[in-house]
Amino acid sequence: MRVLACCAHPDDAEILVGGTLAKYSKRGDEVFIAITTNGEVGHPTWPKEEVARVRQEEAEKAAARLGAQLFWLGFRDEFLFDNEETRLALINVIRKCRPDVILTHWPGDLYNPDHTVTGQMANDVAIMTTVPNIVTEAPPCEKIPVVYFMDSLAGVGFVPDEYVDISDSLDMKMQALHEHHSQVNDWLSDQYGGSIMEMVEVSAKYRGFQCGVRYAEGFIRAKAWPRGVAGTLLP
Amino acid sequence: MRVLACCAHPDDAEILVGGTLAKYSKRGDEVFIAITTNGEVGHPTWPKEEVARVRQEEAEKAAARLGAQLFWLGFRDEFLFDNEETRLALINVIRKCRPDVILTHWPGDLYNPDHTVTGQMANDVAIMTTVPNIVTEAPPCEKIPVVYFMDSLAGVGFVPDEYVDISDSLDMKMQALHEHHSQVNDWLSDQYGGSIMEMVEVSAKYRGFQCGVRYAEGFIRAKAWPRGVAGTLLP
Amino acid sequence: MRVLACCAHPDDAEILVGGTLAKYSKRGDEVFIAITTNGEVGHPTWPKEEVARVRQEEAEKAAARLGAQLFWLGFRDEFLFDNEETRLALINVIRKCRPDVILTHWPGDLYNPDHTVTGQMANDVAIMTTVPNIVTEAPPCEKIPVVYFMDSLAGVGFVPDEYVDISDSLDMKMQALHEHHSQVNDWLSDQYGGSIMEMVEVSAKYRGFQCGVRYAEGFIRAKAWPRGVAGTLLP
Amino acid sequence: MRVLACCAHPDDAEILVGGTLAKYSKRGDEVFIAITTNGEVGHPTWPKEEVARVRQEEAEKAAARLGAQLFWLGFRDEFLFDNEETRLALINVIRKCRPDVILTHWPGDLYNPDHTVTGQMANDVAIMTTVPNIVTEAPPCEKIPVVYFMDSLAGVGFVPDEYVDISDSLDMKMQALHEHHSQVNDWLSDQYGGSIMEMVEVSAKYRGFQCGVRYAEGFIRAKAWPRGVAGTLLP
Amino acid sequence: MRVLACCAHPDDAEILVGGTLAKYSKRGDEVFIAITTNGEVGHPTWPKEEVARVRQEEAEKAAARLGAQLFWLGFRDEFLFDNEETRLALINVIRKCRPDVILTHWPGDLYNPDHTVTGQMANDVAIMTTVPNIVTEAPPCEKIPVVYFMDSLAGVGFVPDEYVDISDSLDMKMQALHEHHSQVNDWLSDQYGGSIMEMVEVSAKYRGFQCGVRYAEGFIRAKAWPRGVAGTLLP
Amino acid sequence: MRVLACCAHPDDAEILVGGTLAKYSKRGDEVFIAITTNGEVGHPTWPKEEVARVRQEEAEKAAARLGAQLFWLGFRDEFLFDNEETRLALINVIRKCRPDVILTHWPGDLYNPDHTVTGQMANDVAIMTTVPNIVTEAPPCEKIPVVYFMDSLAGVGFVPDEYVDISDSLDMKMQALHEHHSQVNDWLSDQYGGSIMEMVEVSAKYRGFQCGVRYAEGFIRAKAWPRGVAGTLLP
Repeated sequence: MRVLACCAHPDDAEILVGGTLAKYSKRGDEVFIAITTNGEVGHPTWPKEEVARVRQEEAEKAAARLGAQLFWLGFRDEFLFDNEETRLALINVIRKCRPDVILTHWPGDLYNPDHTVTGQMANDVAIMTTVPNIVTEAPPCEKIPVVYFMDSLAGVGFVPDEYVDISDSLDMKMQALHEHHSQVNDWLSDQYGGSIMEMVEVSAKYRGFQCGVRYAEGFIRAKAWPRGVAGTLLP
Repeated sequence: MRVLACCAHPDDAEILVGGTLAKYSKRGDEVFIAITTNGEVGHPTWPKEEVARVRQEEAEKAAARLGAQLFWLGFRDEFLFDNEETRLALINVIRKCRPDVILTHWPGDLYNPDHTVTGQMANDVAIMTTVPNIVTEAPPCEKIPVVYFMDSLAGVGFVPDEYVDISDSLDMKMQALHEHHSQVNDWLSDQYGGSIMEMVEVSAKYRGFQCGVRYAEGFIRAKAWPRGVAGTLLP
Repeated sequence: MRVLACCAHPDDAEILVGGTLAKYSKRGDEVFIAITTNGEVGHPTWPKEEVARVRQEEAEKAAARLGAQLFWLGFRDEFLFDNEETRLALINVIRKCRPDVILTHWPGDLYNPDHTVTGQMANDVAIMTTVPNIVTEAPPCEKIPVVYFMDSLAGVGFVPDEYVDISDSLDMKMQALHEHHSQVNDWLSDQYGGSIMEMVEVSAKYRGFQCGVRYAEGFIRAKAWPRGVAGTLLP
Repeated sequence: MRVLACCAHPDDAEILVGGTLAKYSKRGDEVFIAITTNGEVGHPTWPKEEVARVRQEEAEKAAARLGAQLFWLGFRDEFLFDNEETRLALINVIRKCRPDVILTHWPGDLYNPDHTVTGQMANDVAIMTTVPNIVTEAPPCEKIPVVYFMDSLAGVGFVPDEYVDISDSLDMKMQALHEHHSQVNDWLSDQYGGSIMEMVEVSAKYRGFQCGVRYAEGFIRAKAWPRGVAGTLLP
Repeated sequence: MRVLACCAHPDDAEILVGGTLAKYSKRGDEVFIAITTNGEVGHPTWPKEEVARVRQEEAEKAAARLGAQLFWLGFRDEFLFDNEETRLALINVIRKCRPDVILTHWPGDLYNPDHTVTGQMANDVAIMTTVPNIVTEAPPCEKIPVVYFMDSLAGVGFVPDEYVDISDSLDMKMQALHEHHSQVNDWLSDQYGGSIMEMVEVSAKYRGFQCGVRYAEGFIRAKAWPRGVAGTLLP
Repeated sequence: MRVLACCAHPDDAEILVGGTLAKYSKRGDEVFIAITTNGEVGHPTWPKEEVARVRQEEAEKAAARLGAQLFWLGFRDEFLFDNEETRLALINVIRKCRPDVILTHWPGDLYNPDHTVTGQMANDVAIMTTVPNIVTEAPPCEKIPVVYFMDSLAGVGFVPDEYVDISDSLDMKMQALHEHHSQVNDWLSDQYGGSIMEMVEVSAKYRGFQCGVRYAEGFIRAKAWPRGVAGTLLP
């Protein structure tokens, strides 16, 4: 199977679906991570170019930890909009990955517009990836990928439909997340008033209690025709 | 795996999850059907005892078609209430089946109170089946079964979370349903203004279009602790 | 009464509300169909200009079958965005039709962004059509139209509030749909894995079972002030 | 047409659907009001028998104002439960009225259990009223009535699907409500901290603003098979 | 202020609202805990009488830790039904406490019927507690208490409307919970597949992350007239 | 405390949260109103520049009545879009106000796109206001403001989570609203078919009945991390 996580910022994949990606990867699936923005505002004092550069390196290392290949779209952090340029860029990346399943941000989340736009766009272009008359560098996909929405930050407002047991891949998730040095040490904790590493582990434990395993990640399946699927494509 | 469909009336299992039960059965799982009421009001002219007797026979034949074992609780049709007697009877039947998964009516359906009460009770007693201090003829289960809610009649108000592809078992479903001669010929069509056989097939086709297969049945997973599950127990 | 269906692509009106439009039309109401995009990506091998040209012809013929007048906005297929140009174009068309009621796509659908944008915009501009200080070629409407949202494709995620009995107009719906030769023969079936003609008929039958008639179409009324209405404007 | 309002307490019909009943009545429909409980706790100092007796008289006068016939089931106020006795009594009353449409309490309301039980039961027994093998004094109905749920008290938690314009029948509603002298003068105002007459008028005005008329009452259609209906049965 | 937690089993108050009760208590409010069932099935090997006796003692100690007074209704564990006896018993207890606010189980939870019945009843009888014609040992309350629903077990399906910061009372919560020796050591962990103490702490931490404090408990306000309140009654 | 109402048009703050702002103001909080559009289409015959000029003056007077400071963003009425320019302008205004709490339009409302865009943007940029790498004229905020969504027009589709008692500030609300002479006399009444002054008072009375006070305004708290809050920031 081929799996693509479409995320807004360089650390979102690790925070929200790192365990699931590691699990896909460990069982032999091909895993891809596409990051729509360059994360350039993610530091209190560094210049934006520097932040973007460091974060791309961190994202590469984190993806490697998860056995995933990284695609960096590089749009401006906090100013991602749904327009022809971004839509085509996303179609092109999806066509390069030819995923059976896309994991992306839940459009119902009120956390951050880059998340909402990425999740909405990833869902919206899923059919377009197979349409020959939409031309990009990469050729059309042969089948329409199925879309699952990832949990929200701290699970706010999110009631999972399905869970993935990540007890055996939590370590990989946390190690991958830890590669985002610029984020997980002080900055995000100052910004949000708590440790991101701890929040991520507590979230995985909480989702685990909900479904009867040690650690888990939660998902909502996109209710979108013709992207329904009998059975599940989660690992 | 062991699977139990808890239904209100003798033909509900075939109408709502016949394809799924056949699929479990064909792949070697042990399948059980428990029917809470005796269906005795289900005929326009026969006396109630006669209706109940005929319908139990029909239910036996239909279950056999699906490769399932039938449990007949025999409570009064249209007057099933949630009380100690019915609750203990249901616990006892579940303990006899020791299911990993229970398929039952969706409590949100407004169709019929026997459906609502059966679905609510099947969910409610799931934990109790493992508790030694609740004593029934059959000994306690060793683990708490996971609960999925079946589609509503004609899908009214129901938005499935998951689908089961029943393309290969639709025939068995329709044949099993057809065993309910007393229902599927004139009575229900008069009562409801249309052919039940046709409604069931159209429903399976519609759910199939929703998830990209020829025929399907839809489910909502009970969001109930500690009956969550990572992955899915549907076939 | 005057009725306007605001749709994204040339065949959407027939697929989703063809029976309702035919019914309005047959009872003497004035019926209009506005199509926001040119449908140009809707063929696997033809050039886009050719696809758009053919589809406009097909849409004209289909509208004629339904007794409706067609408005072709011609925006680019799959790349419709909500901006001043599209908003004013839509206001202008609505002002030409002066509808009492608008039928449009349900913004909650995750199927396709052209659908979501068209439905959201048609709802959003409804009040603006009466405002003199918003100037378009056509003069302002005298009253704010009421908005109903049409069913989603294959009914995914959609729970109708109201139904229209189309048993007597299903034929017209199917004939009108059949005018979209470029779509209903192979292309869409390949794209979506099933026959569109069959899906549309099964959907009408399913919605019919839900409300007790042979064939029906389902709607959700926009909960939007001051576009509420006592009673209903559906036929 | 034949219309039945199934209410919990003697003044509920006037408070919640008095304008709609008057409108049905004025256009020539046959209107019935069934009250499940005797309202006996509805006074701070009178003995229960006295309260029940006075309230039945008030209900008769109020029903007469609305052109409706009253059915008094007389179950104990605040202690109505769903059991065989109450269910059969309600079936019997519905069979006497043979309604095309039933207006009853919304089961989602958290206001009072008599309301919830009455609304749930009125919905639940709708099909049973046509079943010959369920025997009551009155013979079976020939068709299953359609169910609409009435607004909640002060509209708490209730989002109407449909509205009825009661501008021309508000007077009748208020006069009918005023017949409940024992309730609308001091008792309820003390109990609830405000004038019931005022609350009812403000509610009608508010629902009117929502749908563009002077006064209105709001409804949610029961999403219940086979009680769906194409079009609407509201006046 | 006077606060009553209405819970189903002897340890529910500590698990779900122990921190909030401790906080009320610490700031000088009068706090009461009413437990509807005797918890007698809560042990794998002891006889039921013994379990009930031990758990009542544990509940007394736990309540003392929280500065709360305990009311023990003693109905049969797992077989609590909503009937005249239980309803009057609950009214009587509430009248003894005369609470401004009641915290009780969320009726939407699918975990356990004792929870659902307790929560539904506590909400349902809130108005009745002030009605003189409903006679119990304790005299009527003077005002209707406001109802808040507590979190579900492991937060399944529950999206809080409001949070209480329990960072300063988590210790009291955990110590109170620990008094339930018969539950928190082996039994519940075996039954549910994890440590209850750990689940409770993780839940408090997770709810804390959601609202920006170290530890929190979440609530949904009952949308029930006339129990609305401007502002909040949570501490 | 510092409070900012982010509204789309010059009279929205008075219509939707005038009582709440007055209440904040009276108890000594610093209150700000930001208006995103210039309201220029809000007159049937005046030229747009004139309308905008008059409405800004009216807004200044109305804000003064509420003890609030006005920020006028001046974007084009009915054509507000979410883009870099508008987003930065809104960030800049919020940074000038440094609010603890933002009251803004509910994104779920279908009334008007300026409302939806303003509400969505105000929520979306809340975190960005604290980020140093997003540079505006005003320096970054030190903490992320908490967001509450205001009622919809006529309460359509809106179920409040929380209420503010405005009985003591209704007069100020109505006087402030009355400053919008250009709107509240004829124009809006013609446009919407009823008196805005009356609709606003009826709405306040209705929300008051829902929560047990004479007049109230209703709110839904944004379920958005990390903008959750223990307790409430409403007055």
